[in-house]
Amino acid sequence: MEQQKALTRLHDITREASLVASVISGLSWDQETYMPSGAIDWRAEQTSYLTGLLHEKVVNPDIAGLLAALGVSPENPLGDPSLPARERGYLRVVQRRYLRETKLPASLVTELAKVQSLGQAAWVEARTKNDFPAFMPFLERILELDREAAKCYGYSKSPYDALIEDYEVGATEAQIKEIFAPMEAGIVDLVGRIEAKGKRANPCEGKKWPAAQQEAFSRRVMVDMGYDLARGRLDITAHPFTTNLGSDDVRITTRYLEDNVLSALFSTVHEAGHALYEQGFDPEIRNDWLADGASMGVHESQSRFWENVVARSLPFWRRYYPELQGLFPSQLSGVGVEDFHRAANIVERSPIRVEADEVTYGLHIILRFKLESALLSGDLAVADLPAAWAAESQRLLGFKPKNDAQGCLQDVHWSMGLVGYFPSYALGNLYCAQFLNAMEKEIGSVETLVGKGEFGAILSWLRKNVHHFGKEKLPSEIVLQATGEPLSSHYFLGNLERKYTELYGL
Amino acid sequence: MEQQKALTRLHDITREASLVASVISGLSWDQETYMPSGAIDWRAEQTSYLTGLLHEKVVNPDIAGLLAALGVSPENPLGDPSLPARERGYLRVVQRRYLRETKLPASLVTELAKVQSLGQAAWVEARTKNDFPAFMPFLERILELDREAAKCYGYSKSPYDALIEDYEVGATEAQIKEIFAPMEAGIVDLVGRIEAKGKRANPCEGKKWPAAQQEAFSRRVMVDMGYDLARGRLDITAHPFTTNLGSDDVRITTRYLEDNVLSALFSTVHEAGHALYEQGFDPEIRNDWLADGASMGVHESQSRFWENVVARSLPFWRRYYPELQGLFPSQLSGVGVEDFHRAANIVERSPIRVEADEVTYGLHIILRFKLESALLSGDLAVADLPAAWAAESQRLLGFKPKNDAQGCLQDVHWSMGLVGYFPSYALGNLYCAQFLNAMEKEIGSVETLVGKGEFGAILSWLRKNVHHFGKEKLPSEIVLQATGEPLSSHYFLGNLERKYTELYGL
Repeated sequence: MEQQKALTRLHDITREASLVASVISGLSWDQETYMPSGAIDWRAEQTSYLTGLLHEKVVNPDIAGLLAALGVSPENPLGDPSLPARERGYLRVVQRRYLRETKLPASLVTELAKVQSLGQAAWVEARTKNDFPAFMPFLERILELDREAAKCYGYSKSPYDALIEDYEVGATEAQIKEIFAPMEAGIVDLVGRIEAKGKRANPCEGKKWPAAQQEAFSRRVMVDMGYDLARGRLDITAHPFTTNLGSDDVRITTRYLEDNVLSALFSTVHEAGHALYEQGFDPEIRNDWLADGASMGVHESQSRFWENVVARSLPFWRRYYPELQGLFPSQLSGVGVEDFHRAANIVERSPIRVEADEVTYGLHIILRFKLESALLSGDLAVADLPAAWAAESQRLLGFKPKNDAQGCLQDVHWSMGLVGYFPSYALGNLYCAQFLNAMEKEIGSVETLVGKGEFGAILSWLRKNVHHFGKEKLPSEIVLQATGEPLSSHYFLGNLERKYTELYGL
Repeated sequence: MEQQKALTRLHDITREASLVASVISGLSWDQETYMPSGAIDWRAEQTSYLTGLLHEKVVNPDIAGLLAALGVSPENPLGDPSLPARERGYLRVVQRRYLRETKLPASLVTELAKVQSLGQAAWVEARTKNDFPAFMPFLERILELDREAAKCYGYSKSPYDALIEDYEVGATEAQIKEIFAPMEAGIVDLVGRIEAKGKRANPCEGKKWPAAQQEAFSRRVMVDMGYDLARGRLDITAHPFTTNLGSDDVRITTRYLEDNVLSALFSTVHEAGHALYEQGFDPEIRNDWLADGASMGVHESQSRFWENVVARSLPFWRRYYPELQGLFPSQLSGVGVEDFHRAANIVERSPIRVEADEVTYGLHIILRFKLESALLSGDLAVADLPAAWAAESQRLLGFKPKNDAQGCLQDVHWSMGLVGYFPSYALGNLYCAQFLNAMEKEIGSVETLVGKGEFGAILSWLRKNVHHFGKEKLPSEIVLQATGEPLSSHYFLGNLERKYTELYGL
């Protein structure tokens, strides 16, 4: 009875924190979609104030006592064994966040929020104008504050370890390096063999694809996937993202490039994959602290799954291509579905991460991982970032970006203080491949289901094995339970090898 | 020095309250523009929580001590005479709000916010489906809570007196009745004489006006008026409104009726008039408690000014009609500018308030004033509202609405708990006419300026005499200082008489 009371009180506290967090998400969504430019300073104050309030709620000293009353301690993160499994998972999440956030002074939290909000607006402008120097002071300040945060969290090897924890619980810089080394080698080898086959012609190049038709097609696909528009919406931003203003308000954004018919579609499918995860939490955990991805890596596995496994497959295009042709009759006249599918899977080293094919994508991540780690440690000065980017791009991709907008200004992450996030994208690919392998043992060929438009069977498997839990289980538990093995890069490289051997006749 | 410290501390408190209030406005704006339908329950919780937080800030007991330290008391609302005039106006606003809001229990404030958020969503649906019974329980609950609030505020004559104070400081139900009696008589008489001239043909009737062109035209006009899109934006909602998410983020909404070329334009101009007021506060008072209209009546005077005085004038149409004809060449072919101007000023008793002409408009207000007062006192049961609406409509307008969507469900106000607001619209007409008269003594004929597109001179007068102050002065002070006399209905009826005598050859 006393335990029940403690649990209820704890949920009251965390639900109120979720409420504030969801309002902050709303402000941030608005800032990137509809906010007039002149509102930015006040918006930064709003965000900073609410972030401070959220921090207060998360470090509410009552939490310590309530956790203790429920048998939770650093040695026993799941608390009293008599509690239901879901509540024990919840307690682990609460303690972890409480212990972590109590290490940060409130002034750092609000200052970071303010600088992030301003930095993001400055990034949008700097990117549009290709003006890295204008963004430099923001990035310098963000890194300073990130370093300070890392110091507060504490770390044994590198400050990067302290930050990556926010995105992939338990991961370290050294581990990521270990995972990335064979991945880099495998990708470089595969890309080399693909390129030896010569450049593949793209029948979609050099044409104009009006945004309105692109949007109609993207919307059709995202709804077919199972994305619920009564609990979400699609808008346009400089950088596509998914956010939730509550578990019943999961919004995605995309951007339309009129010279590229696939960019917006793949972005939308990617973000809808994230959104399906957030819309798929068990109703009982919605709008509380379990209502979140197990990790950003697991989150990225969901977006990658829909983007790469589903929307880049031949059966997908056999199903949807006639519709696309109907929307773009002149542009696609004379282009067969196999040609189009091959065009959707052209492997080619290119400058923009979000438009990269699934093979070279990992190289973009390795580049960012190396640079952000160096920026954070101070080994790389912000002023030297463009040159370092050019050098890494040369090494990994074989060319230098033609300007900063296409180079170190292309991604939103650092402007938002998200240092340590990028590896999640690569981990997502590994989780994704491993989930696919396990899923097919249970429900048969995913490509066959996609060809029949039976997305429901796929979504059900993901809901049952991944979405449903939210943060109740650790990523390692989810992958082990769903696939029978710990995470490995084995499936990812194997799948790539198989797919591209066939596509390129290697 | 001690005073300066107290003043700074007080501004810190009120600015933080403004910050929370502006976030609530953002949630409410989002709810009416872009929020997915499934998000409503959580949105109501967000709004309710933040409204409770705002209430806490407004009733912060420190305020009482700070006001006392600054020499403020109910007998001396402006505080220490050595303080600058602006600060003294600020102190009056702070004390008034503090004394008023401390009378409400926090539970009532949060409950009201929740019911308003849900009630508004229920209203949108009920209106769409013409389903008054579905809305009834919400309206009943809102009225119950409004009655409770009135009891907390206290009143000597009617609960209505306690609520109208929120919109028109110092006004009472009895005063409004007194103002409305000659207004009703004057309008009814004028309408009678106009109708005796026979029904005027409307060359715009029975045609289709695509929304895209309507929007282009409305945007052109609102920008010409001086509305700053870097500090605002225009969106579409079921019911047009203006809101601010901060003094540099003043947003307006409109709606496009494809069978009516003028409805959206006049709505947009009306809301842009409100927005010019909010964008026109002195930069020094922005984002604090002085950054608000002197009263809703004064606010409405600004919207009415641009809608009726400017956008319904012949010089306005001489200037803009060629552009409108360019957007709608087939619809307007053969329609001369004088015909169009007469169509824009047709006086005709019609069912929808926001589409009413400026003569019959007041009758819609009188109807609502009477009914909301009866609803609040309990003399009229919610279940009997449709019948009472029909009876009043018959009496004042000469017909019954064909359904509730066109009757008692047409306005958003009651669903948001805004009982006591409607008289502001009529007071706005009186302020507007009186301002016009004073303005012309200073800057010459407004119609001449409009004809030359010199909106700047008009806006400057309004900025200097009205906008600039925000809430620093009472409405009675503003009108006296700007026009040399207290508010009267004399100018309003006189202006109407002159304008329509000419238009209808009375």
